[in-house]
Amino acid sequence: MRRRIDSLRETLHKEGLEGYLVSNGANMLYLTGFEGGSRLLISADGDCILYVHRVNYDAAEDAVKDCEVRRVDYGDDLERVLARRIESLGLKSLGFDVMDAQTYMKMEKLLRETELKPRRDVMWALRKVKGEDELELLREAAEITSMGMEKALEIVEDGMVERELAAEIDYEMRKLGSEGTAFETIVASGPNSAYPHGGRGDRRLERGDLIIIDIGARYGGYCSDMTRTVTLGEASPRKIEIYEAVKEAREKALRIMRGGVKAREVDAEARRTIAEKGYGERFLHGLGHGVGLEVHEPPMLNPKSEDILTPGNVVTVEPGIYIRGFGGVRIEDTVLVLEKGVEVLTRAPYRLVVR
Amino acid sequence: MRRRIDSLRETLHKEGLEGYLVSNGANMLYLTGFEGGSRLLISADGDCILYVHRVNYDAAEDAVKDCEVRRVDYGDDLERVLARRIESLGLKSLGFDVMDAQTYMKMEKLLRETELKPRRDVMWALRKVKGEDELELLREAAEITSMGMEKALEIVEDGMVERELAAEIDYEMRKLGSEGTAFETIVASGPNSAYPHGGRGDRRLERGDLIIIDIGARYGGYCSDMTRTVTLGEASPRKIEIYEAVKEAREKALRIMRGGVKAREVDAEARRTIAEKGYGERFLHGLGHGVGLEVHEPPMLNPKSEDILTPGNVVTVEPGIYIRGFGGVRIEDTVLVLEKGVEVLTRAPYRLVVR
Repeated sequence: MRRRIDSLRETLHKEGLEGYLVSNGANMLYLTGFEGGSRLLISADGDCILYVHRVNYDAAEDAVKDCEVRRVDYGDDLERVLARRIESLGLKSLGFDVMDAQTYMKMEKLLRETELKPRRDVMWALRKVKGEDELELLREAAEITSMGMEKALEIVEDGMVERELAAEIDYEMRKLGSEGTAFETIVASGPNSAYPHGGRGDRRLERGDLIIIDIGARYGGYCSDMTRTVTLGEASPRKIEIYEAVKEAREKALRIMRGGVKAREVDAEARRTIAEKGYGERFLHGLGHGVGLEVHEPPMLNPKSEDILTPGNVVTVEPGIYIRGFGGVRIEDTVLVLEKGVEVLTRAPYRLVVR
Repeated sequence: MRRRIDSLRETLHKEGLEGYLVSNGANMLYLTGFEGGSRLLISADGDCILYVHRVNYDAAEDAVKDCEVRRVDYGDDLERVLARRIESLGLKSLGFDVMDAQTYMKMEKLLRETELKPRRDVMWALRKVKGEDELELLREAAEITSMGMEKALEIVEDGMVERELAAEIDYEMRKLGSEGTAFETIVASGPNSAYPHGGRGDRRLERGDLIIIDIGARYGGYCSDMTRTVTLGEASPRKIEIYEAVKEAREKALRIMRGGVKAREVDAEARRTIAEKGYGERFLHGLGHGVGLEVHEPPMLNPKSEDILTPGNVVTVEPGIYIRGFGGVRIEDTVLVLEKGVEVLTRAPYRLVVR
């Protein structure tokens, strides 16, 4: 964690910021290794103070090595406490990641000598490029997810309720060490599969349904994200056509991915492939997003992204086609960007018909 | 949902607000029945517009009945779109629930004729008092949670790893209809139980451990929250003493709860009971919190709470004693506040020694 705080300090110096205030839980976890802090204040010149509510104070004292831990009690005015510390440290320009408007207004009033600057980009720049220690956890999360998917493809059958299949997948991943799930497991069948975030309800799977299975384990705090679409029994020519279009979009996108490539160009490559098959209007979302301590984080792969892919980025690649009333197909993997090309971290067959 | 929007409008009129902007997901779900909106704009006089990103637009169109649904595409400047609508509706005073500081600054600049007012209390006032439709879902969530706890108490045994027991509980609740879990299941054993949010790791349960099991199902979007503490085999006199103190604090708190009572007085009643046994400094958190679409929401039961209990509130009652290096005890139920007394929604034995 020392190394991460040092990297943040380097950025602060470069950006002319004398300090940085962290409120986002994942950012605090990233910098201190501790989940359950209330605020983290870091000065460019050496101070690091983690404010922790009484409920988590003992745990923080035992776990946090590189920062001073301060206790927050009921009735403490945390903004006032922070402002006093910021002033006593003499921080004239303070970046922050996120802050609720109401807190911001209060801090503005309290801090007459300090300029508050919304700079969440500072943390994203650090978190976007994963270190070896993070990659180890991301690989394990991906492996658990892949095994969950294999289980899903093994047991999926008609008559099963969406929610039942989701329960079995979650249980499998849990037994393999997943800490809950990275997001609520999606099993969207038949017409439900036409909604990218649909399903997980009481619908019974039927032969001929398109079934979207979108799952993710969490391991050591790190997420994974993976989707397969299958059908039971024979697939109609239209379903095969859609499936093949999505699969080709995936392959073409992966082929051009590497460090230095613009994220929106990768999105465009997949989008063009799907448009050529006549489904351009039905690819309803971006091609992908970063994955780390949060399941959706930068870099973003979409038509308006300003991100440039960098070795160490871990992102999803998830083209999809969704036709209202008919159904949808999405194929998604979690992928590590390398200097030359990519390493696909999740694995499971790409096969429309399962039985 | 019509009824809820009407209630919000009544409040707006009373508070002199001409409109309200919603960004919190649970608030949007509460008002529209739809999960997956980006922003919701409501005028006191009749307009209701849900802004939905393209990925969820089809689903929103099919599901949302009482509001106009507007599509948001990549590259759209949502703040600018909102500002234009707010101005064309002529809203001079606009309350909002939450807003990131950066969005707030931008909206402030865009809206020269409109005063922005942080008023999350407006939504909490509505959500704090549960309607019959909500109580039905909360009861079912509580029932699933209770059955999950019964399963836990049935299978817990020494040699089991914390995480294994958590997996079995989650699976049981999932099979009974839980939508994932309301929060990451806690199984904290031995010294881990001394941290209120500890555990869920790789520690093996041993005879004589205090084992805190803190679980919650989610059903129809609504959460539940419940804790039991057990030990395997014989309990030492100190463990029994701590357990009995927590149990007595719980009973005394429940005895004085009813509509009209100050939340902090209920907290004080439990705190006094624990202090009398000599553990006042080791009750490390508030007595409870509201439970609904979010697992932590108002009303709050803690020493500084300004809330007054009202019939229809659903809250946890969860006294605890935590001794670093030794272990902890917490007993928690989800409870409905009535005009006279309470109804305890979660059920499972209160028994320290399980086998």
